Amino acid sequence: MKELQQKILEEGKVLSGDILKVDSFVNHMIDPKLFMSMADEFKKRFGDKKIDKVLTLEVSGIGVAFACGVKYDVPVLFAKKTVSKTLGDDCYKSQVYSYTKGKTYDIMISKEFLKKGERVLIIDDFLANGKALEGLIDLCNQAEAEVQGIGIVIEKGFQPGGEKIRGEGYQLESLAIIDKFENGQVVFR
Amino acid sequence: MKELQQKILEEGKVLSGDILKVDSFVNHMIDPKLFMSMADEFKKRFGDKKIDKVLTLEVSGIGVAFACGVKYDVPVLFAKKTVSKTLGDDCYKSQVYSYTKGKTYDIMISKEFLKKGERVLIIDDFLANGKALEGLIDLCNQAEAEVQGIGIVIEKGFQPGGEKIRGEGYQLESLAIIDKFENGQVVFR
Repeated sequence: MKELQQKILEEGKVLSGDILKVDSFVNHMIDPKLFMSMADEFKKRFGDKKIDKVLTLEVSGIGVAFACGVKYDVPVLFAKKTVSKTLGDDCYKSQVYSYTKGKTYDIMISKEFLKKGERVLIIDDFLANGKALEGLIDLCNQAEAEVQGIGIVIEKGFQPGGEKIRGEGYQLESLAIIDKFENGQVVFR
Repeated sequence: MKELQQKILEEGKVLSGDILKVDSFVNHMIDPKLFMSMADEFKKRFGDKKIDKVLTLEVSGIGVAFACGVKYDVPVLFAKKTVSKTLGDDCYKSQVYSYTKGKTYDIMISKEFLKKGERVLIIDDFLANGKALEGLIDLCNQAEAEVQGIGIVIEKGFQPGGEKIRGEGYQLESLAIIDKFENGQVVFR
């Protein structure tokens, strides 16, 4: 998606350890107009697929998932990383290993909000090793919900997540795929 | 706001300790259509005030803040509760005491994203004692940004936050104000 790639080139910062900092429009400040355009783009790519629910993971996925929820006119469910007083015990739970943080954490959704046969669009901001995405897919499998598609804002194409998940047969659409970082610059696929 | 009150009566659950569980449309699953209507309502209430930026606090504030960002066509900044590799050191920081969790935590925004003179609309999902809101106001004060208004989805009117912050002269608009919980039922003001 040209508009997103342009924004990444203009405002993204490549940090050491292959980290792309896009705090100015994704991870700390959000550009709502761009996000609504991204949701339009996802809708175009997923064509006439029927979606009952958008599923994402707190925190950074919520903005773009919300935009998709508006476009599809369906509820947006965000998996939680921490237990809260209101979450209750009746949850689907999956474990996610974070390479960035070097530790495993739980992601959870309340069973009452994802039902058997519901058609789900999974949305997240970043895809690298794909561990968070696998966790979200696992939650859908536990609920016997049907993953119709997976929409990612920025995929690090040089890391294995995208290939693995596409290899499993999912329609995975990434709006920007980074081939590599070269001299501190982003090179798109 | 009638539509929101109706939804609270239909789907909200009153738990012990004066906790209102609205997980089905605010805190875990989001109803995008309702959120867009709430943003319209905020825009109506704040009238012709000019807004440059919407400020909220992760996690649950992001959805409604995003909806306001769409309606005002301005960026949405969400204050963070945890330090990340991309946040950097150049932050405004404020301390917030959480009565629910019984502890104090930091909220942070990157200095580059909130500038002197920017006109800010602060948005959050809940207002009870007002500590999170005071933290967000403090961040604006540190940045010398101008708080134009504060929009809250659900205010617990029987707790002191609303009165205190209105007493300081801020235009604070809450879409639903709860007067009390009575026999497990919500009574609106």
